Order: sequence, then structure tokens, then C-alpha cells
Amino acid sequence: MKTEIICVGTEVLMGDIVNTNAQNISKIAARNGHYVYYSSVVGDNYSRAYEVINIAILRSELIIISGGLGPTEDDITLKVVADIIGKDLVYDKNIEKNIMSFLNTYEVTDNIKKVSMKIQGAKILNNLHGTAHGNIIEFNDSIIVVLPGPPSECLPMLESCIKLFDDKSEEKLISKTIKLTNIPEAKAARILGNIITEQTDPTIAPYCKFMEVQFRITTRKDDSHIKRIENKLDDYFGNNIFSKSENYFIEDDIYRLILEQKLTISLAESCTGGMIASTLINVSGMSNCLKESYITYSSSAKKCLLNVKSDTINKYGEASCEVVTEMLGGLIEKTGSDSAIAVSGISGPNSDISNKKVGYTVIGTYIKDKGFIIKEYMFDGNRNQNRTMATKAALIQYRNHLLKLNNEYDIIYSTDNRC
Amino acid sequence: MKTEIICVGTEVLMGDIVNTNAQNISKIAARNGHYVYYSSVVGDNYSRAYEVINIAILRSELIIISGGLGPTEDDITLKVVADIIGKDLVYDKNIEKNIMSFLNTYEVTDNIKKVSMKIQGAKILNNLHGTAHGNIIEFNDSIIVVLPGPPSECLPMLESCIKLFDDKSEEKLISKTIKLTNIPEAKAARILGNIITEQTDPTIAPYCKFMEVQFRITTRKDDSHIKRIENKLDDYFGNNIFSKSENYFIEDDIYRLILEQKLTISLAESCTGGMIASTLINVSGMSNCLKESYITYSSSAKKCLLNVKSDTINKYGEASCEVVTEMLGGLIEKTGSDSAIAVSGISGPNSDISNKKVGYTVIGTYIKDKGFIIKEYMFDGNRNQNRTMATKAALIQYRNHLLKLNNEYDIIYSTDNRC
Repeated sequence: MKTEIICVGTEVLMGDIVNTNAQNISKIAARNGHYVYYSSVVGDNYSRAYEVINIAILRSELIIISGGLGPTEDDITLKVVADIIGKDLVYDKNIEKNIMSFLNTYEVTDNIKKVSMKIQGAKILNNLHGTAHGNIIEFNDSIIVVLPGPPSECLPMLESCIKLFDDKSEEKLISKTIKLTNIPEAKAARILGNIITEQTDPTIAPYCKFMEVQFRITTRKDDSHIKRIENKLDDYFGNNIFSKSENYFIEDDIYRLILEQKLTISLAESCTGGMIASTLINVSGMSNCLKESYITYSSSAKKCLLNVKSDTINKYGEASCEVVTEMLGGLIEKTGSDSAIAVSGISGPNSDISNKKVGYTVIGTYIKDKGFIIKEYMFDGNRNQNRTMATKAALIQYRNHLLKLNNEYDIIYSTDNRC
Repeated sequence: MKTEIICVGTEVLMGDIVNTNAQNISKIAARNGHYVYYSSVVGDNYSRAYEVINIAILRSELIIISGGLGPTEDDITLKVVADIIGKDLVYDKNIEKNIMSFLNTYEVTDNIKKVSMKIQGAKILNNLHGTAHGNIIEFNDSIIVVLPGPPSECLPMLESCIKLFDDKSEEKLISKTIKLTNIPEAKAARILGNIITEQTDPTIAPYCKFMEVQFRITTRKDDSHIKRIENKLDDYFGNNIFSKSENYFIEDDIYRLILEQKLTISLAESCTGGMIASTLINVSGMSNCLKESYITYSSSAKKCLLNVKSDTINKYGEASCEVVTEMLGGLIEKTGSDSAIAVSGISGPNSDISNKKVGYTVIGTYIKDKGFIIKEYMFDGNRNQNRTMATKAALIQYRNHLLKLNNEYDIIYSTDNRC
């Protein structure tokens, strides 16, 4: 169905919080064959919410509204929708019962009374994680779904009801996301150019992230059509493909490879200060492989924990190939790990006494029987962007090393690599 | 001015990326006295972009559009705006010159030709970080600003031009954000209730985050009105206020306190796996205070690095007050730090052999002359939510400890605490 998302909330409109609801609602809708054509945000204001929702009802078939369902004065969503479609708000004893049980209380407070209202004739959606219930109501040829704002309430409720609209949906789209790294965007685009121009179904949409290219393959037919393109991409890009699923990340693939190659790993992080370890530990089970890990942000920690020589630091600076090589050596000696990552860089805002440029970063990796790789990078973001980029670059360098892939990136990285 | 934001891009609409542009454009606009009334997203589709931009021009005074300015077929924004206001796109030699110099090239490619077009009569905005130039054009009583999509290009360009619209702006709002922690939301709301009902200007808007309450004070008058409320909040909430600026975070305040109290700090992280160190290192200068820091995710690392006894782990489990106490003891002994944080917990998705509930986490803090605090928490998110909550809880516990504040939180935390 032609779908539209409306998020109601002044805190979203003013930028106090980022609108993750729109993103996640869009994904859930698409997964169920409903494509979002419009998405808007409006504040907790009756007349503007009326205007925006009214336009949506005129042009879209499935309207998913989140936010503005609480008990306070500025929670206006149900009233707005009811007024637009000419219905009343009515008290619902079942909602009241659910809320009393959710709150484990016997006293019907004013707030409970307020959130026990629904749009006359609406189907009610239970909320297992809060008090505000969802409303589903048809009007003319549209279905309007009203959900609470908090993501932990809104998203499970949408998942629970979206299947109901299936029979009305247009033909379903099937899609698959393929993620690549270690290939400059321009090169990926060039190769893909040949495939894309031949294609009408499946379509292939590229999307570039930092040191990563994603292709979304979408078809109105069946899985075999996706498989055909996937095979082509496999032929072209080989091991540079690290993921064939939206929720599988570089760290997941590293975990897979570490297990396959029966390795242990340890880390010594300076500028990244724990980000690499923290990213690896995103993967459940990593404790089987991740041995000791050190954050050696200060030069004294580099000396004490990893036996980096004072002379080396004084001569070459903390962010240098020489220091990273010694960090790596000290780390392996100390932990006896089969593989290791060490990082040192100048994240900014200021340089250190070496006067190297902010963003200069050295990443070292070691893998048993595959030796050492020490590589310089230059990042051009602010402090935290540089640290985040260094983390991703380190994981990619380590994965390349595991797979004996040549590192295809040039030395300088920008925060926004467009295709 | 009554402001509207439109982000053009199928990747935003489909949820492939989260719409941070809308958030940041809104903040920049508000800071300059322009308040956003509507915000929408539309795909790279001529007719729907036409519809959305057309509606915006009818109802808003300042329309800020981002995205769809590149050289490809689906970059349609300039054409749409030009058609709506009845202008042509014209070639601009100055843009061409800027791009050639930005790309450091002498060859005018097809792509360069495409992005050298502007709307006839538009004022051009230089792009220091990319090729697509901005367009500013007036139409009827509205000003339309067209900017490229990548945040690193769009936001600096907006900052550079928004001052131009100042003379047309309505009365300016001044606002200040006050952030509190260590106070349950309900209690903060109750106290605030008394202040809020007295107020029409300044207004006070509360917003709750995990273990944090923010108040935004806004006035149409002058700073002294904000100061009056700020003083009241100081009286009520004292040291529970950790920030009086949007860009000052708990880690910044911890750095301030560590410097003030002349302390060093070291960390031993199990389930958080480097997140606490990484958050502290967000603050530039932290290397002066942060001594050694260990990620002891595996039980062998706890034993080797921190001298935690096997017996203790076997008897109480890795996530236990006993193990965290030993981690803290080992850490202090090893590093000689004046203060320390140690964390161990069960992040999920599975429990360990102790069979404790997923989300159970123990946080220990030590500060010279202020002793030890070992505290249990129960988080109810998924793996990464639990790790993120543990990180924040640890920083708050440590700050409370530094300030000798009683920890006012109950033991169980949910991912979504609404007011």
C-alpha cells in the first residue's frame, strides 16, 4: 500500500531527539510490502497536526502516525484524527483494564482515564510496554494506524498489526542488502554501472558509507532473481563482500573468520580508547576469542603495559609507525595472542608535541603466520569522527589481513564519501 | 521566520539512513530565531517532490531543502524548485570555476557540467566540502534555500547563510538547556510542576532521557529571565545539575571534577568492553588523568590482569559484587590510581553459567579518601542497550561518588523512561 509516516512531537521537530521512529517504521513497512512515499514531522499543535494528517489521508492508503498519545494537554493525536474523520472519542473499559493490570494498580487516576479513550469504531492495539494503546481505523480508502511515540512501544505494536494489512497490499517487493568494503566507491560504481544498465528487475541501488558500499537488490518477482544478481556480485567482488544481510556487520564477519581460523585476538588502543574492543564485543560470544585488551591512551600506559621505549616515543611521537610496531610487539609478548590490533593517532582538536596533522593515525595488525601490517591513515573529521573512522579502518585492515586481501584504500579518508 | 525543512532522498525515506539533517537543521534554525513548524522527507521523485515543496512554499516563510543536488539522473531538487517558481536552470561559470578548483582538475566533465547549473536569479552558496553548490532564491514572501544532502556540506553552508535572513526574523527566542541526573523523573516533574505552573515567559520544557532529565528554558525577553529560572533550578537540584549547555555531557563534567580534585583514574571493563573508556576519551585532555585501562571481558583476563581469584568467579559468577570488588582491588594495586571504575554484567542475549538474569550488572567505584561503592543494577534492554545503559550508569555512579551524592535511583532501569 502507498504508505505515509507522520511523527507527532515538538521534541522531534525541534531536533531535541533524532527521528529514529521514521527510519524504523519505514523499514518495517517495506519488509511487509508497504512502501513509504512521504514522511513528515509535526509538533504537538492541533491545527498543524490536523493539516498534515488531513493531507496524508487524501493522498496515501496506509497512514502510520506515532506520538502524541499520552495523558497530557499537548497529546492531541487521537482528537485530531477523530475530528478529521468525523468520529468521537469514547471511553473504553478494556483499555482501562489493560492499563490497571500493566501498572498493577486499583486506582483509576485522571491520567488513566485520559489514556483509556479511543476513536469510536477503532480497533485497539495492546501496548505491552506502556499505557497508551494503539488505534486502527479505516476511512474512505485509507487505513490509519495511530501508535505511541516511544520506540520500545511503537515498533513492537506496528510489527504486531502490520500483517493485518497484507491482503490489501500491492505486489510484494523482496530485497536483499549486500555490503562491501575495501573497494573505492568510484571503482564499485564503475563495475556496477555495467550490471545496473542491464537491469530493470531486479533493481540495484547503491549506497555509500564510510569505507563501505551497500547494494540493495530489489525484485517484484522471486528469490531466484535476487540470487542471479547476487552471484554476479560474488564474481565481481569476492571476499570484499562481508555481509549479505542488513543486520550483519563487519564485526560479525570478523568473529566468523576468527572462529574459522581458530585465532585469539588482543587489542591495544590509544586514540580509539576502547571503541574497537567495544565494537567487537557487540558480537555475543566474542569472549571466547578476545583475550586481554588494553587502553593505552597515555604515554606512561604505553610504556608500562606494552613496553614501548621512551626513546621511540620521544624520537617519533606517540602516533607513529615505530610506536605502533612496539605496541603490537609488547601486546603479543604479554598476551600470547595469535592475532592483535594496535592503534595510535592524533584525534584532535590539537596535535601533540610531534606537530603531526590532526587526523594522522597509524594502525597495526598482526596475525600468526601472516605477519605484521603497519599502515598510516589520514582522517579529516573532528575528534570523535576521527576516532570512529579509525575504529572502522582498523577492523577493515584486520579483516583484509585475515583474508590476505590487498588494502585497496588510499591513505586519506573524508567523513562523507559520496558515490 | 516560520520555517519548514524538506529532506529529499529515497535513502532517507526508506530508512537506509537516519535523518540527522532534519535534527541539525532545526537546531541551527532555532539558534538563529527561526522556528521549524513542519519537517518532511520525500524520495528522489519529481512529482512527489514537486507536491511537497509546493505545499511548503504556500505555508512557510523560510524553506530549507537538503539533498538531490548531485550530478545523477535522480538528483531532481533544483529542477523541481525552478519549475515551481517558474524559472529556468542556467549554467554558472563561477560554479564551474569553484568546482574545477575544488577537484583540482582542468577537464570539464559531464558531471561537472551538470552540477554547474543554478536556478536563474538565485544567489549561490559556495560549498567548501564538496561540489554541489547551494541556491538561495526568494519567491512571493518566501525564501527558499537549497542545500546538498551530505551533513558535512549541508550544515556549514546553512550556518554560513542563515544570518542573512536575520533582519526578517520575528522576535528572537533565547534558550538554555539544563541537564540533571541522579533524580527520578517523577520527582523532577513534581518539583518542576510548581515552577512550571507559575511560568508563561520563560517557558520550561522537560525532556527525559535514560537516567537524565533535561529542561529547556526559553524566553522572548532577555538573559536575565533565564538566569532567574536557572537560579531556582540550582536551589532545587544543586549538584544533580551536571550541565548548563547542550554540548556539555556527563563525561565533560567528570573531567572537570577530576581536574578539580586532582585525581587520576583507571578502568576495568568487562561487559561494557571499552565503552566507558571510549566515552571518557571523548573529552580532549583526558590523557592527563586516565591512567591504564583494561578490558577484561574474558574470565582469564580478569584473573591474569586484575588478580581476580578463580574461586571467587566459580562461587559467585563473573557478574557479582564479589568479583567486581576484586577487579577494583586488583586495578588499584596494579595502577596506583587515585580513583577507579570496574564493571561486570550479563549483557545478553544469553546468561552465563551463574544463570543470573540478562541485564544484571555490577558497577564498582573507588575514590581515594572516599572509599568503595559497589552497586547492583538491572537493565532490561537488548545486548547493546544494556551495555550502553551500564556505561551511563557507571559514569553517573562515579560522578555521584566524586560529589558524595546519594545515588537516588532504584535498581531497575528500563530503556524508555518517559516523564
